Amino acid sequence: MAYIKLLNEELPGISGLLTNNPRTAAPLLNLAETLLRGSSTLTSGERELIASYVSHLNDCHFCHTSHGAAAAAHLACDLSIIDDIKQNFAQTGISPKLRALLNIAAKVQKGGKYVLATDVEATRNEGATDEEIHDTVLIAAAFCMFNRYVDGLGTWAPKENEAYREMGEKMAFLGYNRPR
Amino acid sequence: MAYIKLLNEELPGISGLLTNNPRTAAPLLNLAETLLRGSSTLTSGERELIASYVSHLNDCHFCHTSHGAAAAAHLACDLSIIDDIKQNFAQTGISPKLRALLNIAAKVQKGGKYVLATDVEATRNEGATDEEIHDTVLIAAAFCMFNRYVDGLGTWAPKENEAYREMGEKMAFLGYNRPR
Repeated sequence: MAYIKLLNEELPGISGLLTNNPRTAAPLLNLAETLLRGSSTLTSGERELIASYVSHLNDCHFCHTSHGAAAAAHLACDLSIIDDIKQNFAQTGISPKLRALLNIAAKVQKGGKYVLATDVEATRNEGATDEEIHDTVLIAAAFCMFNRYVDGLGTWAPKENEAYREMGEKMAFLGYNRPR
Repeated sequence: MAYIKLLNEELPGISGLLTNNPRTAAPLLNLAETLLRGSSTLTSGERELIASYVSHLNDCHFCHTSHGAAAAAHLACDLSIIDDIKQNFAQTGISPKLRALLNIAAKVQKGGKYVLATDVEATRNEGATDEEIHDTVLIAAAFCMFNRYVDGLGTWAPKENEAYREMGEKMAFLGYNRPR
């Protein structure tokens, strides 16, 4: 049970918070839609992976599993592959550019000042554009917000990956601004 | 100089990032406007103070000083009083309710899971409503995003309080969705 009274206590993670707070839900959902499905030279699969990875580092089970499922839906891969990347992206077969962007995302998760000019330069050397570096920092920062919102109010979350498959498909293909 | 190329390099902190990225600026500014100036039983002064305090804990000079100036504008007090509250709110003359809410904000800054049911209960005992607890957690979480965005991209910031006075008045009285 969440720390505050929610009318839809059965809705897990951020879902119950959004349904109970339409006033703040609208700008939050617009932000998620823009960052994860709006125009960008990073694919939505890559962006959901960044979101899931940062949420994993913040130990936010609802966010890292649901956005992991959205990444898997975009990339048409098994959820276990996303789990592997979250656990140890340095050893997986992702592109050097995405690896460098995930490195920046991990620094952002610790705090803005952990990102150094040398990290940005290393990412540029792997072919990332300034816009891609911008989007990565902002997505990683945004999930430091979403994760804190979800866990700071003590919401509940299903445990198993399977419970997130359909949710991830809806997030990936119907988006964040859909009617709830 | 920021880590990425900005067309308006002279604009400090988040200002340069927003002007260069209108696509993501719109939802970010709508979120700030909703959280800090939208409908809430917390005053805008109290909400700007929460924003400034969390930014101070995140060591984000631009955000804590500008939102401190916005809080001072709303509360019609000197910037030095806001500085005192940020440095040591437990010893200042703020209300027990605001003190309890700032305690929750400090937990959110560390991570969502640092907030305990007992913190929420203590805040309720000081008269805070569930909506006020919700808004505090979300504002604190949102500034963990804004701070990381500003510092993760290496933006510059004026040092002295005085440089933020007019900015704070505009934030307080004209809001976040004004033309730039």
